[in-house]
Amino acid sequence: MAWVGLDWGTSSLRGARFDDSGAVCEERAFARGILTVAKGEFPAVFEALFGDWMTPVGARCLISGMAGSQQGWVEAPYCACPANLDELVARLAWIEPGRIAVVPGLSCEHTGAPDVMRGEETQVFGALRLLGIDSGTFVLPGTHSKWVRVEHGRIEGFATLMTGEFYALLRQHSILARTLPADDAALVDAAFDAGVAHALRSPGLLQSAFSVRTLSLFERLPLNERPSYLSGLVIGEELRTRSLRGGEAVVAIGADALTRRYERALAQLDVRVRSVGAQASWSGLFSIAARIGA
Amino acid sequence: MAWVGLDWGTSSLRGARFDDSGAVCEERAFARGILTVAKGEFPAVFEALFGDWMTPVGARCLISGMAGSQQGWVEAPYCACPANLDELVARLAWIEPGRIAVVPGLSCEHTGAPDVMRGEETQVFGALRLLGIDSGTFVLPGTHSKWVRVEHGRIEGFATLMTGEFYALLRQHSILARTLPADDAALVDAAFDAGVAHALRSPGLLQSAFSVRTLSLFERLPLNERPSYLSGLVIGEELRTRSLRGGEAVVAIGADALTRRYERALAQLDVRVRSVGAQASWSGLFSIAARIGA
Repeated sequence: MAWVGLDWGTSSLRGARFDDSGAVCEERAFARGILTVAKGEFPAVFEALFGDWMTPVGARCLISGMAGSQQGWVEAPYCACPANLDELVARLAWIEPGRIAVVPGLSCEHTGAPDVMRGEETQVFGALRLLGIDSGTFVLPGTHSKWVRVEHGRIEGFATLMTGEFYALLRQHSILARTLPADDAALVDAAFDAGVAHALRSPGLLQSAFSVRTLSLFERLPLNERPSYLSGLVIGEELRTRSLRGGEAVVAIGADALTRRYERALAQLDVRVRSVGAQASWSGLFSIAARIGA
Repeated sequence: MAWVGLDWGTSSLRGARFDDSGAVCEERAFARGILTVAKGEFPAVFEALFGDWMTPVGARCLISGMAGSQQGWVEAPYCACPANLDELVARLAWIEPGRIAVVPGLSCEHTGAPDVMRGEETQVFGALRLLGIDSGTFVLPGTHSKWVRVEHGRIEGFATLMTGEFYALLRQHSILARTLPADDAALVDAAFDAGVAHALRSPGLLQSAFSVRTLSLFERLPLNERPSYLSGLVIGEELRTRSLRGGEAVVAIGADALTRRYERALAQLDVRVRSVGAQASWSGLFSIAARIGA
């Protein structure tokens, strides 16, 4: 059976073709996130970019990510937590029955408000399979970081933190931008660590963010170190609120450059990190595909 | 003796002429904040806008605010906390000896980083005089809110929180902006209160801010209420980190529209508020002037 998996996000589109064992035979990536696709043009874009993979009789495609949102190909209503793989499979949104389906995102409720994710649930299930575990705490760093709790193969709940977006807002649009260099150079570890440490002992980011300005004003933070320090501040703020215990382990899923920063920051809390890369999406899509049945 | 006081900030310039008792005889306001004044042009701007007030023999002018910063008329180095009125007087930066002086800002150190203010110290000393007190907790809400502790007439320390700026960043530049109406309408009290309450029970703004998006997504927050809810979130986040005790009282210094929001938010923590308006600057400048001696 020919299996195809797509991770169709807001700004990018990645695809993989699998063999029967779940191994990836071929990958493709395009700058065709859903924001670049007009309503009604999803079938044509899909056919143009992946039609050749779908020619074998019985070929199937599973799609995770924002393609299942209101602005995507077809809306796949959120599946409420707790949810396991079987529940995701039961709620797949079929575009062509038996041939193309979208994986639903998850929703949960905490501190009186809903929370949502699309795509990260698939990466988490993929990481479980790759690591051979069924429980754990997962962080998926990014524009909107996700922290996900899994117990016995079931996603119990999760939280979204707008860490990457706050970094960009402060970096580009705030008064701090005036004291920062035009470009982010390579990470300066010591400055990043100092930012993490400051955030961890501060009561909150509204206050700690101002230290970029004052440390600059008093010439206690060299120009080239400021972006690293600010990165440490926002990631430290994220960790400060996560109630992590020393000795605990978390799984970080994402690109190396970013998960390494989390690994570095979490070390200050004596929390160990296992990292999983982009293959988590493929592994998760295959796990779902394998449960659909022939 | 003719006394003139100026509050010369980043974006605005206000002036007052006092009689010997400290009563204000006349006020003027101009959109001539220091950002509009080129280096070297401060004397000419001052002469054009306030020269007529300075013609009496022995006329004196005290200036508070960002006019004393590196980008201002003359740099008045920060005075380290704790500091009382006498210390401010001793560290006045005289532009024309005996005639025109700039009040220094204050600096302090907390959680391993410096903090600074310019102008708010004068407002706090003014509020002390207006209220006839010598100790208290003061909040000066704004783009960069200040929380100031005063004991026996001495500013012991303070903290800056970038509350107003975070509101503007989220309102205008974040993903949340897409779900907000173009204009802020009148404050919707219930939505503001809900934002405050959510922030108070949330671990931090990185997480609570996302609720604007999800409550909108699930149609649990009407379009016109979203700016009020977001305002409640950022002010609630500010208060969450202040370690306030129920039954406590704080003094809020600022424009009515803003101090009323803080009064409303602080009521959720059972904290009472006394408010002081723009006259705090004049009262503070007169307190300093009165100590200079003839």
